[in-house]
Amino acid sequence: MNRDATKIQLDESEMPTHWYNVVADLPAPPPPPLHPGTHEPIGPEALAPLFPMALIEQEVSAERYIEIPQAVRDVYALWRPSPLYRARRLEQLLDTPARIYFKYEGVSPAGSHKPNTAVPQAYYNAMEGVKRLTTETGAGQWGSALAFATAQYGLECEVWQVAASFSQKPYRASMMRTWGATVHSSPSELTEAGRAILAATPDSPGSLGIAISEAVEMAVQREDTKYALGSVLNHVLLHQTIIGEEALLQLAKVDEQPDLIVGCTGGGSNFAGLFFPFLREKLAGRMDPHILAVEPAACPSLTKGEYRYDFGDVAGMTPLMKMHTLGHDFVPDPIHAGGLRYHGMSPLISHMYELGLFEAEAIDQTTSFEAGVTFARTQGIVPAPEPTVAIAAAIREAKACKESGEEKVILTALCGHGHFDMAAYDAYFAGELTDYDYPAEKVAEAMARVPVIGG
Amino acid sequence: MNRDATKIQLDESEMPTHWYNVVADLPAPPPPPLHPGTHEPIGPEALAPLFPMALIEQEVSAERYIEIPQAVRDVYALWRPSPLYRARRLEQLLDTPARIYFKYEGVSPAGSHKPNTAVPQAYYNAMEGVKRLTTETGAGQWGSALAFATAQYGLECEVWQVAASFSQKPYRASMMRTWGATVHSSPSELTEAGRAILAATPDSPGSLGIAISEAVEMAVQREDTKYALGSVLNHVLLHQTIIGEEALLQLAKVDEQPDLIVGCTGGGSNFAGLFFPFLREKLAGRMDPHILAVEPAACPSLTKGEYRYDFGDVAGMTPLMKMHTLGHDFVPDPIHAGGLRYHGMSPLISHMYELGLFEAEAIDQTTSFEAGVTFARTQGIVPAPEPTVAIAAAIREAKACKESGEEKVILTALCGHGHFDMAAYDAYFAGELTDYDYPAEKVAEAMARVPVIGG
Repeated sequence: MNRDATKIQLDESEMPTHWYNVVADLPAPPPPPLHPGTHEPIGPEALAPLFPMALIEQEVSAERYIEIPQAVRDVYALWRPSPLYRARRLEQLLDTPARIYFKYEGVSPAGSHKPNTAVPQAYYNAMEGVKRLTTETGAGQWGSALAFATAQYGLECEVWQVAASFSQKPYRASMMRTWGATVHSSPSELTEAGRAILAATPDSPGSLGIAISEAVEMAVQREDTKYALGSVLNHVLLHQTIIGEEALLQLAKVDEQPDLIVGCTGGGSNFAGLFFPFLREKLAGRMDPHILAVEPAACPSLTKGEYRYDFGDVAGMTPLMKMHTLGHDFVPDPIHAGGLRYHGMSPLISHMYELGLFEAEAIDQTTSFEAGVTFARTQGIVPAPEPTVAIAAAIREAKACKESGEEKVILTALCGHGHFDMAAYDAYFAGELTDYDYPAEKVAEAMARVPVIGG
Repeated sequence: MNRDATKIQLDESEMPTHWYNVVADLPAPPPPPLHPGTHEPIGPEALAPLFPMALIEQEVSAERYIEIPQAVRDVYALWRPSPLYRARRLEQLLDTPARIYFKYEGVSPAGSHKPNTAVPQAYYNAMEGVKRLTTETGAGQWGSALAFATAQYGLECEVWQVAASFSQKPYRASMMRTWGATVHSSPSELTEAGRAILAATPDSPGSLGIAISEAVEMAVQREDTKYALGSVLNHVLLHQTIIGEEALLQLAKVDEQPDLIVGCTGGGSNFAGLFFPFLREKLAGRMDPHILAVEPAACPSLTKGEYRYDFGDVAGMTPLMKMHTLGHDFVPDPIHAGGLRYHGMSPLISHMYELGLFEAEAIDQTTSFEAGVTFARTQGIVPAPEPTVAIAAAIREAKACKESGEEKVILTALCGHGHFDMAAYDAYFAGELTDYDYPAEKVAEAMARVPVIGG
């Protein structure tokens, strides 16, 4: 295979057999989660009401490689290995000497990278006799991934979707139902948390924080039910490393090494999946890529957030986790990249950022969509709003190569297609997108409500 | 590679270099189109105001193989070769000894097989100096394919979309605009045809027939503009044969030959693309598949239509073509498989049906959707409504194999995903789908208005 190929594929037999646990290669593990009441470190047993033991073991594991069960690989094979593309038509438009590669996760049934973790999460729960998984979802990427995954192992799936998305973007819920899931508008009358909100605010548009509370409540109440989370946690990031492991094999087929790896970050799982395996190679001295996380200017947890203990949810029900945060009750402005609207950053990624293992920057919304449209018109695929922040950075770097003459190899992850996000493109073309300024005051207010640990 | 692989891929270097023209292998070519006024056969020159010469030559060609230009293969490479899947999880659910393979065309940027012809049509027009293409679209599959294709060669694209779809399903139009196309609700004030309709019926929901009239009018009026059609014509079917050529190579990789080939038919281009290359092998005695076209019971042109000269459009503006027809002004009931709601059948496929080269049957709407849901829950991909008629037939045949013990190899085409069709699945789950009976009376009325040729 040569570098002029548009699409670099792997055969099913070349699919990686192990996930990579980056914790094994760090000088120190990330600080432990703390009990929200006692502020003491919590052990794995505290997570047992929510997650099966196999996932809790992965959450705290220090093993470098964890084998992907055959029954998970069988489902992965429905779309994996995913293609690595060389964006030649984009390069031609930019007239750049850079070579741009993108790993495309939109080929999954749910249309994003989320099934990479939804499938093993459903599998391990099924193996431990769980009958039903609950979860929350915003626009619906994660909920549809879990609906697909549970269908593969005969589990029931119950999703609480933020009311505003449930009513305005109904087709993600249709997709979840097609795979057999039950979808509730959140807040719902089914939970105490939901009923309390509805009593106070009958027409509440909901929030991810409320939906998490409902899904968690319904999981802990029922013996046969557990809960699933689509980002942030170590085991989620672990499962996503199949993206980077495949990309390593694919670039090797065309004898390339990346000079720049650029990914979008919300909770961090897609970026982690892409760069962890490459970081292993970098730490071992086998390559030396520059690694860049890109976040939306409206929700810049890495570049503007403080690194301290905070809650993972708005209501303050989760353990305290040390991470870059804008404050657990900070509500980001309504950018269309809904998957990046999270107040915090994965504790593992936050820890690695503190170690100086990668850099980060923030990009505004119209710059991102402009890049998304350029990408669609050259490469065909209409990107989801989330990866357009990374595409924008990749395009800027490729343009810089035109000036400098450098033949940089740029690798990015196109973590999903935009088939369910076309209203966002409509808003862009109508000139209705807002470049929200960094909301410094709102963040300061939210940070004032973050508990002070050990102080 | 072995038969237990889930996905059989071809490398880009294995992409077929030629389209296959089945006319070369038929005992006689299909009857010629006739002038709508004189009823005399028309020559290629009659098509020149609408199509570039390269496509007109392909329309009447008797050459067995036509080379795919490199500039077309470069764009095909954005998603081709498309994967051939073995539907192992579906087989397991059905507990069948049959092996079910499906060729998946939903990986194209527009999400269906339509770009296979949109791309060469845009290319040949660009080569002949055309600046702009016009076309019509219903739900939007074809319009979005052409919008994508024209963006690749720097052409403008103007699409007239049936008003009912334009307002009820806005996201296909958003996709077309993302690729740079201009989309009009049809009827529009831009054309004489549109203005006449609006004067009589200001709130007209439009129809494919009206939209064709508008697109054609705007093409013939402007020197730099031509028209593009997404199905029915010989050159369209020719371009789709890359589907079957790839499937032949892919099945050979796992040492399989199909016992049954089953495809859905509307205008016929997807079915043709799948089966023409296999028919060549059958006629040459190299394999012996049973070949089955499946159409919706609400619009059964092959199984219930008469084989005679009729117009291709509702208004009677096109040449007369000999084909299986339900009457050019027959309006099918509003089934969700919008791409199969065509009153006629491709003249070439109609001719081949008369020659006994394949069989046909009709399947009702709820049976189709039931099959679509079964497919989604096992194989992950949510199918567009159109291919579910073929999936339903494939599932029925696989179940019959369970009874008989036959290890049949079944090949079908999954011509598109259902990401823009989720409202149809909503209707299915709500129990709101209608199994329209064959509308014998309405067809008889429409057939009475078909011109009598040579009588």
